[in-house]
Amino acid sequence: MPAAIDIKLASATRDTAQKIKWLVTPTSDAWITQALANLDTVLLDHSHCERKAAGVALSLMSRYPSNEKLVRELTAIAREELEHFDQVNRILEQRGVALAPLPAPPYGGGLKAVVRRNEPDRMLDLLLVSGLIEARSHERLGLLAEHLPDRELAKFYRSLMASEARHYGTYWVLATTYFARDVVDARLAELAIAESELLTTLHPEPRIHS
Amino acid sequence: MPAAIDIKLASATRDTAQKIKWLVTPTSDAWITQALANLDTVLLDHSHCERKAAGVALSLMSRYPSNEKLVRELTAIAREELEHFDQVNRILEQRGVALAPLPAPPYGGGLKAVVRRNEPDRMLDLLLVSGLIEARSHERLGLLAEHLPDRELAKFYRSLMASEARHYGTYWVLATTYFARDVVDARLAELAIAESELLTTLHPEPRIHS
Repeated sequence: MPAAIDIKLASATRDTAQKIKWLVTPTSDAWITQALANLDTVLLDHSHCERKAAGVALSLMSRYPSNEKLVRELTAIAREELEHFDQVNRILEQRGVALAPLPAPPYGGGLKAVVRRNEPDRMLDLLLVSGLIEARSHERLGLLAEHLPDRELAKFYRSLMASEARHYGTYWVLATTYFARDVVDARLAELAIAESELLTTLHPEPRIHS
Repeated sequence: MPAAIDIKLASATRDTAQKIKWLVTPTSDAWITQALANLDTVLLDHSHCERKAAGVALSLMSRYPSNEKLVRELTAIAREELEHFDQVNRILEQRGVALAPLPAPPYGGGLKAVVRRNEPDRMLDLLLVSGLIEARSHERLGLLAEHLPDRELAKFYRSLMASEARHYGTYWVLATTYFARDVVDARLAELAIAESELLTTLHPEPRIHS
């Protein structure tokens, strides 16, 4: 991990974020307040996030079909994301929340815009951006696990943490498999700043990445 | 199933195809000969087919996110396809066949071209075309199971049959969940003819859908 983004976070409520070295800026209290006040919407958005994360992994495997390690690792990630997708959808059903489309916040589009167009830069950026999204998701699902008053739901979010943490670790390992360590570090430092900047202003619609 | 496409097939070697009522025309002996003579390429193409089938299921869930039954059933299909993808990739590794891109035969593009553009026709066509591809895959993987001299590999293909058969059944059930039975029957009869016509001439490159 590059030292520049290995930041110790001050807030006492940021136990999870402290461990997530990729993230330059920890999530604000405003996000937690917004999420807890709009829990059903955030759960529905979480469902979409899991399906999209599986789609990202599939899309990378389709784009780089010759890279054996990438294919093997991302197959495992896609399978886990689909398992989580199914679990979140069952929770939505139990809560009587109907599945529905939900407009995405600007976060994903903003990250897509910073991906460079030419190979091999594109591959490095896609791996690191995917990893950053996983890292941020891990942080925010961890915050839900910490702050949710509903014990069952908090337990469910805790149960997701181990595999979500593995996912951004996997993207990091893949980046360093195909690119030199110093190149990865330098680009990750830039992308991590861009990622945090996209979240500087809380999106008015409650989302995992609002 | 519509009576028009519930055809009894004559060939003694078509045990599998006989049970696949969606398919108007059974696979030719020429395909079997081509596949057995180019097994590594067909195995590699099978790997791509499994990843693409998972992608099709994900894409349908993304397009129709409010349809609870569709989302639940296609999540299960996508998970199984990814499991098979992983299994085929391990077999390729054991055989020393490197993962690689492989130009697709005209089959998939030809089927995409007959999907109507306006909803709800588009949804019906996507479900039925996906089901037809699963039915044809089921038939051809079954033929590999029957004809492969390699016992281990034949066993693997037999092990895939039960879930592959369920998949086109699921697409049929989903079509009849969201559309009237007579509408489904009429459109399936048309699409099944289109599907068989796309395979009338054996594609020169050995593929699952050559």
